This record gives sequence, structure tokens and C-alpha cells, in this order.
Amino acid sequence: MEPSLLLKYARGDTPADLLLHNARVINIFTGEIIPTHVAIAHSRVVGLGDYRAEETIDLGGSYLAPGFIDAHVHIESALVPPGEFARLVAPRGTTTVITDPHEIANVLGLDGIRFMFDSAKYGPVSMYVMASSCVPATNMETNGAVLHWYDLVSLQNDPWVLGLAEVMNFPGVVHGEAEVLDKLRIFKDSVIDGHCPGLTGKALQAYAAVGIGSDHECTTVEEAQEKLRLGLAIFIREATNARNLKTLLPLVTPLNHHRISFCTDDRQPADLLDEGHIDFMVRTAIAQGMDPITALRLATWNPANHFRLYDRGAVTPGRRADLIVFDDLQAPRPRLVFRGGQLVAQDGVALTPRRELPRSVRGTMNVAWDQVDIRIPAEGRRARVIGAIPDQLVTRHLVEDIPVSEGLAQTDPDRDIAKMVVIERHQYSGRVGKGFVKGVGLRKGAIASSVAHDHHNIVAIGADDASILTATRRAAKLGGGMVVTVGEQVLAEVPLTLAGLMSTEPVEVVRGQVDRAIAAAHELGSPLHDPFMAMSFMALEVIPSLKLTDRGLVDVEKFEIVPLWVS
Amino acid sequence: MEPSLLLKYARGDTPADLLLHNARVINIFTGEIIPTHVAIAHSRVVGLGDYRAEETIDLGGSYLAPGFIDAHVHIESALVPPGEFARLVAPRGTTTVITDPHEIANVLGLDGIRFMFDSAKYGPVSMYVMASSCVPATNMETNGAVLHWYDLVSLQNDPWVLGLAEVMNFPGVVHGEAEVLDKLRIFKDSVIDGHCPGLTGKALQAYAAVGIGSDHECTTVEEAQEKLRLGLAIFIREATNARNLKTLLPLVTPLNHHRISFCTDDRQPADLLDEGHIDFMVRTAIAQGMDPITALRLATWNPANHFRLYDRGAVTPGRRADLIVFDDLQAPRPRLVFRGGQLVAQDGVALTPRRELPRSVRGTMNVAWDQVDIRIPAEGRRARVIGAIPDQLVTRHLVEDIPVSEGLAQTDPDRDIAKMVVIERHQYSGRVGKGFVKGVGLRKGAIASSVAHDHHNIVAIGADDASILTATRRAAKLGGGMVVTVGEQVLAEVPLTLAGLMSTEPVEVVRGQVDRAIAAAHELGSPLHDPFMAMSFMALEVIPSLKLTDRGLVDVEKFEIVPLWVS
Repeated sequence: MEPSLLLKYARGDTPADLLLHNARVINIFTGEIIPTHVAIAHSRVVGLGDYRAEETIDLGGSYLAPGFIDAHVHIESALVPPGEFARLVAPRGTTTVITDPHEIANVLGLDGIRFMFDSAKYGPVSMYVMASSCVPATNMETNGAVLHWYDLVSLQNDPWVLGLAEVMNFPGVVHGEAEVLDKLRIFKDSVIDGHCPGLTGKALQAYAAVGIGSDHECTTVEEAQEKLRLGLAIFIREATNARNLKTLLPLVTPLNHHRISFCTDDRQPADLLDEGHIDFMVRTAIAQGMDPITALRLATWNPANHFRLYDRGAVTPGRRADLIVFDDLQAPRPRLVFRGGQLVAQDGVALTPRRELPRSVRGTMNVAWDQVDIRIPAEGRRARVIGAIPDQLVTRHLVEDIPVSEGLAQTDPDRDIAKMVVIERHQYSGRVGKGFVKGVGLRKGAIASSVAHDHHNIVAIGADDASILTATRRAAKLGGGMVVTVGEQVLAEVPLTLAGLMSTEPVEVVRGQVDRAIAAAHELGSPLHDPFMAMSFMALEVIPSLKLTDRGLVDVEKFEIVPLWVS
Repeated sequence: MEPSLLLKYARGDTPADLLLHNARVINIFTGEIIPTHVAIAHSRVVGLGDYRAEETIDLGGSYLAPGFIDAHVHIESALVPPGEFARLVAPRGTTTVITDPHEIANVLGLDGIRFMFDSAKYGPVSMYVMASSCVPATNMETNGAVLHWYDLVSLQNDPWVLGLAEVMNFPGVVHGEAEVLDKLRIFKDSVIDGHCPGLTGKALQAYAAVGIGSDHECTTVEEAQEKLRLGLAIFIREATNARNLKTLLPLVTPLNHHRISFCTDDRQPADLLDEGHIDFMVRTAIAQGMDPITALRLATWNPANHFRLYDRGAVTPGRRADLIVFDDLQAPRPRLVFRGGQLVAQDGVALTPRRELPRSVRGTMNVAWDQVDIRIPAEGRRARVIGAIPDQLVTRHLVEDIPVSEGLAQTDPDRDIAKMVVIERHQYSGRVGKGFVKGVGLRKGAIASSVAHDHHNIVAIGADDASILTATRRAAKLGGGMVVTVGEQVLAEVPLTLAGLMSTEPVEVVRGQVDRAIAAAHELGSPLHDPFMAMSFMALEVIPSLKLTDRGLVDVEKFEIVPLWVS
């Protein structure tokens, strides 16, 4: 809005568009709760107090606070694109998200990031992007795109790009790899997010010294405190597969709370629907004893200030009218949500219509099936085996006897030894990584998925080759997805046609499909809470101990590819 | 420093330049005091802990904190240029100042600002500039330069320019004057400082709405609290002539302290030498009961964060080694001061040599003496008279009988009615503003000065015309300065040859000259604490009630020029 017009509204010379009458406004700067009225014109709050307006809504004394901001989220983990994600989180009070479109960037590179932008536009949530810094994660995998520093330059002047996303290659930073430093260099005047689980001492100091400004991987108060001391902002995370909130709450004190924000990182549809988003973190923090004003700050002004989004995060004249209205200060549940002065959700329901996808993304199931061979010739008796650990992303590095028949290595369901394959799906290479996994519990059949961090090749685990082939071929035929099979029969499937990562369906539909797929995997014998998620991280070669990519087994401690067979 | 090199130091692979051994480091982020060692290389802190270094200084357990930052200061008020000012404040722990070169800009425009930059370069203090927003203050005066928005554009890309300086024309903002809005527009993505004494309600909301981000004019906690609520950062000020510190300290709470900084605005040499600079504010705040860590935050990280100077304000790897060392946490007096890793002051003494002035500024005493006529024809019996109020910048608007002799209005020392003149000194116009003042107390003689806010014409007050002419002519002949005379005799003088505002002498010399000039004025009968300062603000037509510029008497309430004589 032109300042000259904004001033007319603020002075009260021109009636505002909307007056939210009789609110208890959370003042994020002073910590006060102030009974007043909030005048809105165009996208902005224009004044607090007695103002005339074209329309008035009586809030009856409800609380009014700034909309929530997620400091770090990978939208792809919700299995729906940004437009649908926004429909899901806006009713939960989220009006701004800082995203790292890391998953789709690994499949489609800059095209993927542009798709995310297009899908987010004109929706009920402001989506800002941090430029993905680690695409691909390592050179021990095949992914769909490489983002060099000169590719990231093309994002730099986009007003929706705030900086460089979580620099996960922390060894590369600490050791000063040229490519990593080049990426830091081009974003040196912007915000740079960190990701350095467990990094400590001089290595952590080196990591902080080059301008990395945050971390969201802390799992203990001590770890977070060491990082806070070095000036890293701490994003407390409550992801589906990494729940740090309750553990880290004791970190927050009056003296340091302005350096701390909330983020969700990765949340699946079921958790978003059942628990919520940042609102869930706010309620949980308060329930655990945090002062409500402090909890609201961690969800609003703190991330706004960190990301230099000075136009939001507080309810003051001139700032965006991104607002939530709720009735219980001890457990805020937004009953009204405004974004830019528009009512976008009411009583938990999004008021914005589902939008057409802005444009289709190209097909990403580029598999040379005629070259794919998932058989494993027996080249020994004992093999390295990935050992699943329930509810953890790390795995064990086991060595087990493997049965052999007709010169081929076999699975052994009685000993819970299944076959795992990673079929390259970006470059028609026909390459297949092959190995064995213990602890997934499949008595028969197979599960397959095109979600496999971070390269997102087609990963499958099965008790027999026929089931694995049916599942992986079906996943590819769908254009991407999650599949459960027995022999030639498909038991359940979740089509993920957008880059093999996201669905075109409403999130409620996706959630039902995922529930059924997990249930089918449970029926095949898996005791894991979510065998698909467990599998998707068994392909990620930067988390210990033994992982499988299309290029083979990776010993993460040694950071090198190792043979399947132990001599 | 190149990140690749910084990393070598941080990892400890390469010995640092300097190790400050055995320090108690104030951690500005966590509020902790941590016993450790601080390694420095080039201009940066490179690590905390055990590091090898070329040189080691044992601090013997002294406290170590970030250097102080003055959030808002007019260096000209110290009557010395930035290089000398830095020699003065560096020993007091100041390593960064955010300045508004408003006084010299009113005399010399952009040339004056460039002079300030040149004088500050390579000194012991980082001088950042906010672009002066109100040059001239109003059109009821003649000053030396006009800075339009398109003039300020030329400063915008200077790395030492952080934004737009205090927008004193708050009525212009509130009413949306085009020129003011243009200045806001070009700095909309930068920091914009405010100045809005007493502004409240909807007018204040309008002022805040257009992006003004701070205020340093609060005189009560209530005023500051209203501004804090609107998202304005509060700079608590302790100037020579506006002492708000003790009054405002109760404002600061754990919940809001991160929104508050310290500033000095205007401090004269004597106060800087006798009391100190930001260090004085820190000590005073602690003595008044503020927690020392909080006081240090208001003087370091808070202004750094506000002005987006993310490279300083904390002692962490990668940030500038702007550091102070002191022994008493309850009354910090820096015994060592480092700027960019260099020791610049020790035990209250600057270690950097006095520098040659980078270049002279042109002469600014452009007075058409042949046209100057300070006689006042008697056009009535009763005249408007400026009424001085001790220790205040505001004046009374009086009406008094004026003696007449030979058709000319006369002074009346017995009734404490003196003559005041403002002689235009920028444009050879010969224009003289003439009037009377009551309460300055001169029994005989005159005082004159080329420091007269904000236009800095030659202002004088005297008991007789001869003394006034001697004083003003002498001030001009000096190239600017403060002068005390009786008849044709000069009793004392302070040469201020740099734009008529600042001296080329060391600050200790200037302080002695000023003391003698004030003493001489006292001997002439003035009871005012500092009659020169009182006089310099009697020419400032934006502070109530009755003021005198070269264009005549200004009724500040009416905001217009009014006749001397009352009909």
C-alpha cells in the first residue's frame, strides 16, 4: 500500500476496510495483553483503537495474535504441494513458512523449486524459500539435479528467497570445501541456515564463524546451549520423525528466548491433521509450563526478526494483517485466521478454494527397466546387512549369513532378512543398488516408494523378487508413489505423481491412502510404526551407519561405498 | 578475511595472531559469564578456548565484553571531528557509533558528510552514518544546504550508510508530505530512525506505520511504553542537555529489553571527558539496579541487531574483535579496548596517534558585513521577547516594554532584556534576524557563536551593539567559533574552524577553551549553566515557544514568522 494511503487509514481520516472489535491483543514487543480494536485496510493493520471501518467483526474479547511462522519446513514431507499444504496449515494459524524445497530440488533442480513457488502463489500462506544448499547430498548416489553455487545465483534476487538453506554438509564447511564456501559466499549478506547435529568444540566454532546463523538439529539442552553461545539462533523442532520439543523446552529463559524459534522440519499428513502444525508446538510448550507470551513469540516475532521479515510477526500499524483469533490463552486454537487482511480460515476449516496446480511437472520415473536386474549373485556367504532400529533414522551395520540358491543370494524371512533395492529413476541408467536389511519384519510381499531421501530413487524392501518387481514397477507406472504388494498383487498404493514426492489429491485423501499402505505393510508382518519412512531413510547415506543407494552400500562412518560381501 | 583462512584459525590449524588468555567472557546471547580464552586473527575473533597464538596477553581473570555501540550520536556536538571524537570515546570502550551528521550537513550538505567520513576513516572507532533527513529543518531559516531525497540517493549504496536518520519532521510524516514520503521510500528496505517527542495516539500510529523503527526522544516510561508497543525500538538517551537515563530505566524488563539500546545524541567535551560515553550509561544503569548483563546488552548486541550489523555486538568466532576488558562488573571501566583485533586504548588513553585532518573543508563564514545592520528601528513600544528557561530547550513567549532612544530600540540590562541577533552566514545575504531575550543575565558585553541549531548561522546575545558586533565579527574572522566580548575587547574565544562547528584542536584543549568562555559569560552576569548552549537552541525554530532565525521571530506553536512589535 502506498504510504500516503496507509497514513490516511492510520490517522483515521479514511474508514478502514475491517475492524476487529473487542479483541485482547497480544503485544509481542511488550508482552502485554491489551483490550482494543484492530483496524485493517488492504493487507495491513492500520491502527489499534477506535477506528471507523466498512465492516466490523465483534471478537467478543477473544485473543488476537500474529499469525504463526514456521522457521524451517520441507513441505514435500506432507506429501502434498504448497497450495494444498497451505490449505492444511492455514486453519492451524500458520500464515508464513520458511521452506527448503530440498526434496523436489533433488529430483527436478531449479524447475522443481519454481514449481513450488508457482503452487504457493496466491494461497493462504506466505511461502519463503531458502535456497537448497546440498543437492545432491553426496557423490555416492545418483539424483535428478545438481545445484552448483552458480545455479543458486539465479534464485538470489527473487524477493521470496531469503538466503541459503540448511548447510547439511557441515564437514564440508569445517574443512573449507571450495564448492561449499562458494555457496556461503554468494549468500553472505543474507540469512544462512545451519544443520549440524552433534557438532561441538572447535569444529562447531568453525561452522559458526563463516556466517551460518541457526541450527534446528539440537537434541539436548546442552547441545543447544553451546550453539546459542556462538550466536546461532535455535529452531526447536517437532517433526514426525524427530521430536525435540519437550526435551528442549528447559533451554528457553527470559534472557535467551528472543534467540529461539519453533519449526517443524518434516511433518507427515497424519501428524499435521491430528496434532497440528506450529499451533501444536505452542500448545505443547504452554502445557509443559512455558509462559504463553513467550511461546507465541517463538512462533511469531522471533522467526520474523531472524529472517528479517520486518513486515510481520507483530500486530502493529503498518505490519501485515496476518492474524489469528483464539479463546484459550493456555491452549491457543485459532478460530479465525487472517492473512494479509483476508479471512482464510475459520473454525479449523480453510476458506480458500483448492487451486488448480499451476503447471504439471515433467515425469520423473526415468527407469531403464530392460536393464534393471534385482538379482544378487552369491559372491560369498556372509554379507553386510542394514539393521533397522525402530523409530530411529540411524541403522546398525550388521554382518549375516545369507542363504544361496542356484548361485543367487536369497532372502530369509524366518530370520527377518529381506532384500532391499534402490532403482535409479532419474537418468535411465538401469543402475540398481542391492543389499539386505534386517528388522523390517516382512514375512512376505514387498513395499516400494519413490520417496527415498535425498535422491528419491525407487526404494523397495521385500521378501521375494516377484513382489519387489511388482511394487517398484507399479510405483513407476503411477508416476511415483508408495506401493505394497504380494507377488503380482497390489495391496495398497499412494500415487505421488508430482516428482514422485507429492500427490495431486487433497491431503485428507492422501492421509487415508498412507494409512492403508502402512496397514497393509503391517499385515505383511512389519512391526515398524511406519515402515515407509524407515525405508526412505535407509537410502540416505549421510546418516549412520550402513545405508544403500543406487551406487551400492555406503559405510557412513568411513564415508565410502563398501562391498556387499564380506570376504 | 577469506572464509577459507578464517576456518584454519577457527579449527586451530594455524596459530592465531593474539590470544587473550584467562578472561571471563560475557556471553551476550546466553547471559552467561564464561571463563575461557579468546583467539583473534586479523580483525576477527576466531575461537574461544585453547588456541595457539603468536602473542598472548594474560587477562588475569578480567571481564571481556563486546565493544560499546552508540545507537545515535551527533559527533559535532563534541566540537571535534570524528577522528578526534574517536580518540576520545575509544578509551571509554566505544568501538562503533551510529551517527547523524546533521549539523555539518546543514552547513555543507553532502560535502560535509563526506568530510565526516574522511575524518573517521582508519580511526579507532567504526563510524556508520544515517542519512540526515531534515536539512534544512524548516523554510523559516536560511541554512547552507538542502538535502532532497535525490541527494540522499547518492549516499544509499555507501557501505557505511545504514539508513535514514531521525525523521524529526514528524508532522510532515503524519500528514504525508511528499518530500518526506520520498525520503522514506528510498530507504524503505533500510533502517529508518525516528524522533517524535510526545507524539501519541493515532498520530504516533501513523508515524510508526510507514516504517520508522526507533525513537530516542522519550522522556517518560509511559511514552516509551506506548512506542515499544508499536514496534519502535527505544534508544535511551543521556545527552548533555537531555538526560533521560534514570527516568527511563524502569522501562527495561526481561521481556522487552532486547528492544532497547543506549545512545548519547549530543554530548559536549566536558561531559565526555568527565563522565564518559556509553560506558557512563552502563555504569549508571548498573548503579541504579540494572543487571550488568542486561546493561551490556543495551550497549552492544541490541544496537548491532537493530542496525543489522551482524558482524559485531558479541564475542563469538567470526565476529569482529571489537572488545573491551574491565575488572569491575558492577562498574565497567575499560582498561583495554580492541577494535578489529587491534589494541586501540589502554587505561583510559587512546593508543592511536592523532591524525592529520584528511582535507580542509571550505570556509563557511559567508557574511556580507557591509549589509549587516543590527540596529532595531522602534516600530512600537511593546515587543515579543524570548524568555529563557534555565536548563531547558523550550522558551517562553513574552511581551515586554522596550526602551527607545533616537528612534532605535534599546536593551535594558536592569530588566535583563538583551538583544539577540542571527546573522546569516551561508549565502552572503546580509540578512539579520533581530529580537530581544530575557533571562540570559548579561549585565554587559556579548556572547556569539556559529553553533546555532540547526542552520548554524552566527547567533549573538548582548547588552550593547558594540559588544555584539565585536563578538560576531570575531567569530566570523576565526572561521567560526564561540566568542565573549565587552565593547571592542575579546574576553574569550573557542575557534571552530571546521564548518563553524568543530575545532582542529585536541578535545582537551577545546574543553578548556569552552570552560573559559562559559566562565567569561558568567562574569558578565549570566546565571545560566551554559549560556552558549542555551543560545544555540534559541535559534531552533522547531522547539517551542518563541525562537529567532535569520528570517525573524518564529512562533513555534503557530509555526510561522511573527512581527517583533506587538501593535
